[in-house]
Amino acid sequence: MVQNNNCSNKGLYSPIRRKVYNSDAGEAAFLLGGIGTGNVSVGARGDLRDWEIFNRPGKHNKLPYTFFAIWAKKDDGKPIVKKLESRLRPPYARAHGIMPEDAAGLPHLEESSMIGEYPFVWVEFRDSELPVHVTMEAFTPFIPLNADDSGIPGAIFRYRVKNKVNCRVDVSIAGSMGNVIGDGVGNPWNTTIDAGCKINEYRDTGDIRGLYYTASCLDKEAINYGNMALVTPDSHVSRKQNWLNKGWWDGIHDFWADFCEDGRLEAESTYEALNTGEKERYKVGSLCIHRTLMPGEEAVFEFYLTWYFPNRIRSWYEDDYRFGNTKTIRNYYSTLFKDAWDAAGYLHSNLERLEMYSREFHRALFTSTLPDYVIDALSSNITVLRSNTCFRVAGGHFLSYEGCSDANGCCEGNCTHVWNYAQTLAFLFPELERSMRSMEFNMETDEDGRMSFRSYTLLENYKRRDLHPAADGQMGTVIRLFRDWKLSGDDGFLASVWQNAVNALDFALKYWDKDGDSVLDSQQHNTYDIEFYGPNSLVNSIYLAALKAAAHMAEHLGDAKHAADYRDAYEKGSKRVDELLWNGEYYIQRIDDVNRYLYQYGKGCLSDQVFGQLLAHIAGIGYILPREHVRESIYSVYKYNFKRGLYGHNNVQRVYALNDESGVLLCTWPHGGRPRLPFVYSDEVWTGIEYQVAAHLIYEGFVAEGLEIVKAVRDRFDGYRRNPWNEYECGHHYVRSMASWGLLIALSGFKYDMAEGAIEFNPVINRSCFSSFWSTGKAWGIYRQTEDENGKPSRDIEVIYGSMEGISINKSKVAGEWYDNKHEASG
Amino acid sequence: MVQNNNCSNKGLYSPIRRKVYNSDAGEAAFLLGGIGTGNVSVGARGDLRDWEIFNRPGKHNKLPYTFFAIWAKKDDGKPIVKKLESRLRPPYARAHGIMPEDAAGLPHLEESSMIGEYPFVWVEFRDSELPVHVTMEAFTPFIPLNADDSGIPGAIFRYRVKNKVNCRVDVSIAGSMGNVIGDGVGNPWNTTIDAGCKINEYRDTGDIRGLYYTASCLDKEAINYGNMALVTPDSHVSRKQNWLNKGWWDGIHDFWADFCEDGRLEAESTYEALNTGEKERYKVGSLCIHRTLMPGEEAVFEFYLTWYFPNRIRSWYEDDYRFGNTKTIRNYYSTLFKDAWDAAGYLHSNLERLEMYSREFHRALFTSTLPDYVIDALSSNITVLRSNTCFRVAGGHFLSYEGCSDANGCCEGNCTHVWNYAQTLAFLFPELERSMRSMEFNMETDEDGRMSFRSYTLLENYKRRDLHPAADGQMGTVIRLFRDWKLSGDDGFLASVWQNAVNALDFALKYWDKDGDSVLDSQQHNTYDIEFYGPNSLVNSIYLAALKAAAHMAEHLGDAKHAADYRDAYEKGSKRVDELLWNGEYYIQRIDDVNRYLYQYGKGCLSDQVFGQLLAHIAGIGYILPREHVRESIYSVYKYNFKRGLYGHNNVQRVYALNDESGVLLCTWPHGGRPRLPFVYSDEVWTGIEYQVAAHLIYEGFVAEGLEIVKAVRDRFDGYRRNPWNEYECGHHYVRSMASWGLLIALSGFKYDMAEGAIEFNPVINRSCFSSFWSTGKAWGIYRQTEDENGKPSRDIEVIYGSMEGISINKSKVAGEWYDNKHEASG
Repeated sequence: MVQNNNCSNKGLYSPIRRKVYNSDAGEAAFLLGGIGTGNVSVGARGDLRDWEIFNRPGKHNKLPYTFFAIWAKKDDGKPIVKKLESRLRPPYARAHGIMPEDAAGLPHLEESSMIGEYPFVWVEFRDSELPVHVTMEAFTPFIPLNADDSGIPGAIFRYRVKNKVNCRVDVSIAGSMGNVIGDGVGNPWNTTIDAGCKINEYRDTGDIRGLYYTASCLDKEAINYGNMALVTPDSHVSRKQNWLNKGWWDGIHDFWADFCEDGRLEAESTYEALNTGEKERYKVGSLCIHRTLMPGEEAVFEFYLTWYFPNRIRSWYEDDYRFGNTKTIRNYYSTLFKDAWDAAGYLHSNLERLEMYSREFHRALFTSTLPDYVIDALSSNITVLRSNTCFRVAGGHFLSYEGCSDANGCCEGNCTHVWNYAQTLAFLFPELERSMRSMEFNMETDEDGRMSFRSYTLLENYKRRDLHPAADGQMGTVIRLFRDWKLSGDDGFLASVWQNAVNALDFALKYWDKDGDSVLDSQQHNTYDIEFYGPNSLVNSIYLAALKAAAHMAEHLGDAKHAADYRDAYEKGSKRVDELLWNGEYYIQRIDDVNRYLYQYGKGCLSDQVFGQLLAHIAGIGYILPREHVRESIYSVYKYNFKRGLYGHNNVQRVYALNDESGVLLCTWPHGGRPRLPFVYSDEVWTGIEYQVAAHLIYEGFVAEGLEIVKAVRDRFDGYRRNPWNEYECGHHYVRSMASWGLLIALSGFKYDMAEGAIEFNPVINRSCFSSFWSTGKAWGIYRQTEDENGKPSRDIEVIYGSMEGISINKSKVAGEWYDNKHEASG
Repeated sequence: MVQNNNCSNKGLYSPIRRKVYNSDAGEAAFLLGGIGTGNVSVGARGDLRDWEIFNRPGKHNKLPYTFFAIWAKKDDGKPIVKKLESRLRPPYARAHGIMPEDAAGLPHLEESSMIGEYPFVWVEFRDSELPVHVTMEAFTPFIPLNADDSGIPGAIFRYRVKNKVNCRVDVSIAGSMGNVIGDGVGNPWNTTIDAGCKINEYRDTGDIRGLYYTASCLDKEAINYGNMALVTPDSHVSRKQNWLNKGWWDGIHDFWADFCEDGRLEAESTYEALNTGEKERYKVGSLCIHRTLMPGEEAVFEFYLTWYFPNRIRSWYEDDYRFGNTKTIRNYYSTLFKDAWDAAGYLHSNLERLEMYSREFHRALFTSTLPDYVIDALSSNITVLRSNTCFRVAGGHFLSYEGCSDANGCCEGNCTHVWNYAQTLAFLFPELERSMRSMEFNMETDEDGRMSFRSYTLLENYKRRDLHPAADGQMGTVIRLFRDWKLSGDDGFLASVWQNAVNALDFALKYWDKDGDSVLDSQQHNTYDIEFYGPNSLVNSIYLAALKAAAHMAEHLGDAKHAADYRDAYEKGSKRVDELLWNGEYYIQRIDDVNRYLYQYGKGCLSDQVFGQLLAHIAGIGYILPREHVRESIYSVYKYNFKRGLYGHNNVQRVYALNDESGVLLCTWPHGGRPRLPFVYSDEVWTGIEYQVAAHLIYEGFVAEGLEIVKAVRDRFDGYRRNPWNEYECGHHYVRSMASWGLLIALSGFKYDMAEGAIEFNPVINRSCFSSFWSTGKAWGIYRQTEDENGKPSRDIEVIYGSMEGISINKSKVAGEWYDNKHEASG
């Protein structure tokens, strides 16, 4: 194995440093939960927040009375009892004070710091009174190429407790949780079911034991039907399955008194009085683990939290359900598990394997010699896949909004022009990515080749929106087909969608190329939610890459006619685009009067101007425009659009970066010619576009420039300004942010062709000390490289998951990359 | 006039220092708006926030595209154009970025700091690029004893701009505002009316000119009917009365370009294009004032903002209206003005007088030699009166919730047991306070003397809640009657409610005193929202003060029978209460088994234990329990209940103070005996109770202790943790916080008896250098005192408003105070 003990890189290229979020990093929230299961997040104080397990987003949602607490008593001492969260940070104001449901008035631990390295989060607590040292670890299993085991509706919470004094310490940790089954905590109808119908059951099934929450008055088909479990494999437990509920806040009062007394919980509290108060609507329960620790001894207090809310709306729009126009559809995960207890059982029985591969993935990513902020950008945006942005329905189909509003999905239907940018899913769960291609080509493309850029068919929306087709999205889908085929080597998959792909591509010639010059020029709806008129390099670079990819695919499938047609169109188009749009420095939009139509960019320097070229690089299609012009174009984007500091920026649009922050604007007009009303997002800063520009700069040899942009992005997501695990645009956890995975591909010079059975690495930084994660549709692992003094590399490939049997590595040329590319100079 | 040039007090007693809120004090929000008109707040960045002018609270509400901006151009320079707010502070995250409606992406001024001294707020801006120095001043006229002129639906905004360079500078300031008439910005039905029906009119009525916003599709009776005006008396203006609205965010785009160009606005923008986008729902307009400033020259850019939303729900509950069970009722202010333009005209025509008295009030309060945090506590809570907590309806009746949720009033009906604590209104607008007495006694008291502790009758609620009568509230109302009579000297008022007051008092003897020993002992509903059982000194101290006050009032009215009865009951009760409840250190609750009923306090040290005594002091009723016991009681509260730091506090209830903060707990059990479930708020910290305890400590000679508490309270409202102008409890701007005005009465040793024609001052701090505001129902002004070396005071009384004709000052004893008080030692 190649040893990377020779890494002395500095500055932008230096390998990973751990990013630590102190307890005042109030925006930091690390999402737990599987693909399509919803989430609960861990904050930098060790708090549980943003309960989004009810089939919808739920930013700021809290679960009442849901927290962990510790009781620790030295041999002969007084017990120290505290909530297992560090102290609250200002502001403290709420209309009615902080309500008892938050348990904010209990003693808290003095300090905490959080490290989140996907899929693991660790919170280290510090407290001068506690006789023990406590660290929390939490994760939901995450295994690339294994979507089911990455889609478990639950999370593991482990409190690692170490005795730090010179005598025996008795320690208890109690987890409490409100039973909100059927309630309005984040469900769209704000129903509240009668507390009397909620059931907190205590179960012990031998291997695990704990609380199981149901609501007897809910039918299995009900939209708010479900159950939850808080369990432990530990056998040293006590519990209070139903908190006292005479009235008011008696429950927490009684729980806390009981817990403080001896660190053990009575199963039921009794209290007789002549009066009662207003009853709590929640049934709350607690599960407590006890241990005795000798000096220096350490123990792990392990809890599993699982949930099961099987029914979601069979629509992209809540109103469809609200007004009775649709019913429900089952979550995919609910077809794998019977209920939350079953999911907990599965977690327990398979934990060794699930955890091993999750840790291996973490090791592969985080022992990389790529710069810390790059790994941060890659790993943090995996979150999107497991946020409420994405979901899976019975049958396994993968669906996604573009992002999430605080309480709703936002912008429906696997939007093709947004997914254009995303690379993460394709490389980690290519099977799910391919399911989108199947939907796009086989369900969303009409016979004439018009593709709906939003997928409506699967959810049988009662009213499919009649959208103008999106030129960039439709053409990008063809490139993504090529990529996904090369990643999987699955010819059957390619063949299954080919005819519709041909139709979709041919549609462009008929619909967008009015004058038949192989340059798209008519009304082109695109990812800026407006229409471009006339030739422009955003749409045309994608079109050219699609043509070139399609020519290759046609040839592979023996479809010589299309291969020739597409090759011809590509060659003609490429030449013509360059003639029409190259201004000597970058590619522009060709339009006579830029103000004749609203929302154009004309002579502007568009950050996405050679986006199709980046897609071609990542897919291995090679150059689609003259290499030197491409290089100069992307450098112009860096030169003109990357702003260091935005104090003077005049932006009347949406604000994603401001003040002292740096970022890439969507467009600038360095030589004048700004339209009176340019396209409506032109002055904005989108991380997804910043990543595509950065990856492209790296591909073109401007490595430092690309990395500078990545660093600027991640500096904005510092836990104080924004949540590191939430790059938002038109919604939280925005799909476009998954463009970041392209950085890995670019930096490691990774090429793949499973159809031909070859992969190749050609790192562009830290070549003498390189280590990085890699993946294809067949396997994933770690690639390591050192170089001798002559620059001759020693390579090592570690296959962690899957098999690379029959796949050559850096042995022969990877097909496609320089497939018939007359523009390309040398590799 | 006495000169106070000899003030060298230090520490707790030192006179006022200005409190400055820097731009990062994100919680600080200073409320503008009149009594019963709703509010808009100014934040520490100079931003307008919390638009609560639509007959309901609206914390975090923003008005779209509503901001001021400055354009400043040096003689030969480039214009500097910025939003007149300092830079945003983190966190910056929003699901969709910060939306264009907030105009957050425009260049902002570098820094700002805010000073708010009720009723004035000043924001000073700092910017290194601007050639001018800018300060904003804003206020709504506030004149004690003149409720109408303190109830104008509007505010004045003045930007004071000074040329700080050596050449001529052209300056424009533009105010922009979205027309949201009829919209869902804070109205309870979230209606959105068609933008087409909104009208932005430009008016010039000679004295004022500007924008007048209406919506033609709304009937005058509609709940969301209304209008707004943004005007100026300045004649150097331009305007854009309708922003461009082709689609998307064109309006702000076009406005900003127009403003940047030459600091002048085109009245209408035109733009022809072949396509359009999705239209904005708002019609936005801007009004711009221009001036030219020579070096060193200063000019004031003055805007008036007024509003008129006449119709509010004729109920305490929005659901009553939502479900068609009630209609609307008119706001009182809408009977004074025809519309928002009329209000602006009134402001303009009367500004000199309105401003003069507002400034005089400010001077009287803020030139005081009372400690800064005391003035802060007094003045900041005046806000409650002009927040949405309080309102006035046609006829002038003053009504209030207890406080405000973020978007609704919370806890209806002039709650008697909460108003027990409040002193501000009684001393500043005694007429409004008396209107509550009239309602309580003449509308809410049944023939048998049972008083509803919430006023329902006036709003004709379709379903009046049948509440258990509140013993503390009902008895406190009798004390407040005494206070209000003494403040006004209005015998007619006293006579008009007397019979019902007698009934209300007699009800106590029948209903709460089961064994006829003049000690209330049966089920006593009280301000902790639970029932006390058995004798306790909270309810009984109030009862005793009510008896003593009633005896005095009866005698004054020639009702000898009641005078004798009440005197007897008082004397008997006072002796018995002391025997039953004094534990040698403080007064307790007498109850055999403290756990027999939920929510008692038993042997606890209750912060409110001698609350009735404080009310007696403020009203001038004298001691109602043995003075030494009272002194020891209130000192015990300080000793046991005032906590310096709350890190170790175990509070499962609501949280109003935490971590390093200090505060007074509602109850503690210093000698054990804590019930298993004590009353539900027992571990909380309420500012209203802290102020009553502080004022009482001062009355009993523990001045430093009282001030220490006040300082601790206001340290918690520092602009970062909480809003200085929002002391919340069960809702924002909570009525109980107006207990703070009692500090002024206590510290200045103020006694008043308008019935006998006498007032008296006997300051307890800074006697050699004392200056303070004072008020009665007849006049208000400043009292000043110095002392010669022998302690002989020189006094000066300045009458600013009203007349003190016939009123003696420190000449004869004020009646009532030591009226027949056998417990009292020396004055």
